[in-house]
Amino acid sequence: MTNTPAPVNLTDKLAQFSDLWSQKKIADINDYEVKLAKLKGEFVWHTHDETDELMMVVSGRLILQLRDGEVELGPGELYVVPRGVEHCPVAEEETAILLLEPAGTLNTGDAGGPRSKAPEAL
Amino acid sequence: MTNTPAPVNLTDKLAQFSDLWSQKKIADINDYEVKLAKLKGEFVWHTHDETDELMMVVSGRLILQLRDGEVELGPGELYVVPRGVEHCPVAEEETAILLLEPAGTLNTGDAGGPRSKAPEAL
Repeated sequence: MTNTPAPVNLTDKLAQFSDLWSQKKIADINDYEVKLAKLKGEFVWHTHDETDELMMVVSGRLILQLRDGEVELGPGELYVVPRGVEHCPVAEEETAILLLEPAGTLNTGDAGGPRSKAPEAL
Repeated sequence: MTNTPAPVNLTDKLAQFSDLWSQKKIADINDYEVKLAKLKGEFVWHTHDETDELMMVVSGRLILQLRDGEVELGPGELYVVPRGVEHCPVAEEETAILLLEPAGTLNTGDAGGPRSKAPEAL
């Protein structure tokens, strides 16, 4: 027997919360955070001027609206929103995503407002 | 119609190569790289003194041997090997993983040797 830490199981972690649009931190890598979130409906248009943002769909379907089009992501698909590119996530059905970005990145980016929320540890 | 880039589909990308222990870059996020690799057998013991390393299993089963135990990962499970922690990946069956680490991180870390290989773009 050892005290080796267990792996992080995405399904198990997703079963631990149900609130929408609330990022849950599941791992750190250097000064970046790996987070999960459940989405349904439309978020707010915003931009991260200082960082790229990676999103990968675990279940459901995510549409990333961009000003010049949109990217649709299903399970096992990822997309990196480049820094400075305005975007607005929307999910018609409840959708679970994995996010990766530097610690301290605000979910609403430059837009701020009432839907701003710091990530919570799971 | 737009020229919006397509998402990165992990299954599609994995179908594009078959060589083992060869990292394929599928995305950049800031100065980090997202890579895929197919593993079978045992790698070399090595350490990354400068960075943590994230691995997530897409298919198959990965055992991360550590000096004080091991971590076993199945599909949808991830683990971050902390910087400075010696490790040796082993996969009994062919296993596909996603890796995340800073650009320039050598696959064999401090160990170097004949299995060192820079990532290739897919």
